Amino acid sequence: MPERVGDIGEFGLIGRINELLRREGAFSERVTIGIGDDTAAFLPRPGYEILVTCDAMVEGRHYLPQYMRSFDVGRRAMALNISDIGAMGGRPLYALVSLGLKAEMAVQEIEEMYRGFLAELNPVGASIIGGNLTHSGNGGFIDITLIGEVEKGKALRRSGARPGDAILVTGYPGQAGAGLQLLLQNPQDPRILEEPLVQIYLTPSHRAPLGAAIGQSGRATAMIDTSDGFLGDLGHICEESRVGAELFQERIPIHENLRQAARRLRRDPVDFFLGESDDYELVITCRPSEVGPLRSLAERYLPVPLTEIGRITDHAREVLLILPDGTRRPLRAKSWDHFRRSDPPE
Amino acid sequence: MPERVGDIGEFGLIGRINELLRREGAFSERVTIGIGDDTAAFLPRPGYEILVTCDAMVEGRHYLPQYMRSFDVGRRAMALNISDIGAMGGRPLYALVSLGLKAEMAVQEIEEMYRGFLAELNPVGASIIGGNLTHSGNGGFIDITLIGEVEKGKALRRSGARPGDAILVTGYPGQAGAGLQLLLQNPQDPRILEEPLVQIYLTPSHRAPLGAAIGQSGRATAMIDTSDGFLGDLGHICEESRVGAELFQERIPIHENLRQAARRLRRDPVDFFLGESDDYELVITCRPSEVGPLRSLAERYLPVPLTEIGRITDHAREVLLILPDGTRRPLRAKSWDHFRRSDPPE
Repeated sequence: MPERVGDIGEFGLIGRINELLRREGAFSERVTIGIGDDTAAFLPRPGYEILVTCDAMVEGRHYLPQYMRSFDVGRRAMALNISDIGAMGGRPLYALVSLGLKAEMAVQEIEEMYRGFLAELNPVGASIIGGNLTHSGNGGFIDITLIGEVEKGKALRRSGARPGDAILVTGYPGQAGAGLQLLLQNPQDPRILEEPLVQIYLTPSHRAPLGAAIGQSGRATAMIDTSDGFLGDLGHICEESRVGAELFQERIPIHENLRQAARRLRRDPVDFFLGESDDYELVITCRPSEVGPLRSLAERYLPVPLTEIGRITDHAREVLLILPDGTRRPLRAKSWDHFRRSDPPE
Repeated sequence: MPERVGDIGEFGLIGRINELLRREGAFSERVTIGIGDDTAAFLPRPGYEILVTCDAMVEGRHYLPQYMRSFDVGRRAMALNISDIGAMGGRPLYALVSLGLKAEMAVQEIEEMYRGFLAELNPVGASIIGGNLTHSGNGGFIDITLIGEVEKGKALRRSGARPGDAILVTGYPGQAGAGLQLLLQNPQDPRILEEPLVQIYLTPSHRAPLGAAIGQSGRATAMIDTSDGFLGDLGHICEESRVGAELFQERIPIHENLRQAARRLRRDPVDFFLGESDDYELVITCRPSEVGPLRSLAERYLPVPLTEIGRITDHAREVLLILPDGTRRPLRAKSWDHFRRSDPPE
């Protein structure tokens, strides 16, 4: 019988997690009080602003335990928070992990989830400094608060885009969303887990180191990650900057894998690019003269291209898709909304 | 029909909450980015450490919607996080609120919950700067991350108690736990909600302003709040400080209301004091010469007494109750453990 959470209790589990973090986690000398007191504490760096974000994943809704290893669930939960810090141009530093657990969960699975957190935190030099464990009889949840830093005044907001700015995107948004659809349409097929797009859905990449470098460079005017889908997040920039956007369809980066998957799913790959969430790519706006320097910067950080796909206009909140024949098609933001009917199945 | 979360969607709800916070919440000039971007941001004060804590409450387990108004659920969730910051000697500044919600929840109830958060935050000058809303089909949860500050080097840890130190406690721990028992034993009686101890359970007080003043004064050696029950939390101090403790039974502050409730519940009131959680009083250790000055300080902040009830010994981890006849009774920490069988009913 594997050891269960109920066997060792809350304080037993905290002890086990602390040991794991001490052994396998990164160490930060600015942390003055770590896990094991009423609060954690750290000494901020002079001249830096503190960034803070939180994001929750609910079992059966944001992660599917039947398809995902605990390690990957942990990676995914941490990656999406790291992505948010990167999208501000910041560097992640400290995480607090709050878990809702069932008493019958295996201790080993929880340890694997923490190894997943560390697999994302260690490479960026960030560490877990606190959290909370609570009994949640009705289904698990993972709620992560991630703290980061950015040099004073250099945070990249949604509100800085100006008419005439270029619109850039990293990588190939839409792949993870197509991967999820493949998974949901073929739940019984074990080979489905080896599909490249399903892999991208299960272990998404963030672009936080590039985001931090862009913030530091001062070359961008606005930045956001595609957690609500490309169009939803471009919509956030348009909304907050009171601008519009034109996208050139022929420039939209569609990976060959997405093209094939879209055929199988009988959908337009551009729809996946525009509408699906679950990728954590960056949308960046900048003056046209900064496109070249930002491309050079991106080459140092990314295994994927940075593509210029459109420009910001002064038609507030109007987003147009320009087809190859010059037709202008208005687009409506179709973004992930947690409470609407269009949500993925529970 | 009241308006439901599913009617207005995630972004509609975020808009409504933002309006409420702008209208009714405190403003902080050090917040450089508030709600509405990938992360929030603030400028830390030079010479201060940042404190950070999180605590989750799960519906049906840590709060009972059938007995508690949403406003009180919000107050309670925020009060217990504020208590943690105060127990470090710090001052609360910024909260992130992560909610797991059902689509059928009434928008007005959620707004009332936020008013409950503000009822605790506004008096201490703290504000909500971010958060997350997520669909949780199986039952709600409230997870709060609270950020505070403490002057560099002045955080009060669990590990600072030394043999010979006095042990002080604020107020009358055990009352909230007895209130919960009264509530659970008389669920059908509407008058039960007016019982003073039930009221204390439903809207607990924290002692954070006193905690911050004690931290600032430098007069205490260790401090903790009684969120795990008095004995559990004194146990944490003994564990982390590698010391023991003696408590004098006749000095234990038992309120007349608790004495009466304990009679009705056929239990020893001292058991409630030692074992029950749900009060957020402070346990403080200090050199004997500091007891007087700390009492004077407490009189300025507290409507309840600060009582010296024992002393720290060099018998590591041994906690003794000294009875009026001099008998020494060893005590075992019986503290709140979220996953053990002894938990309150779900």
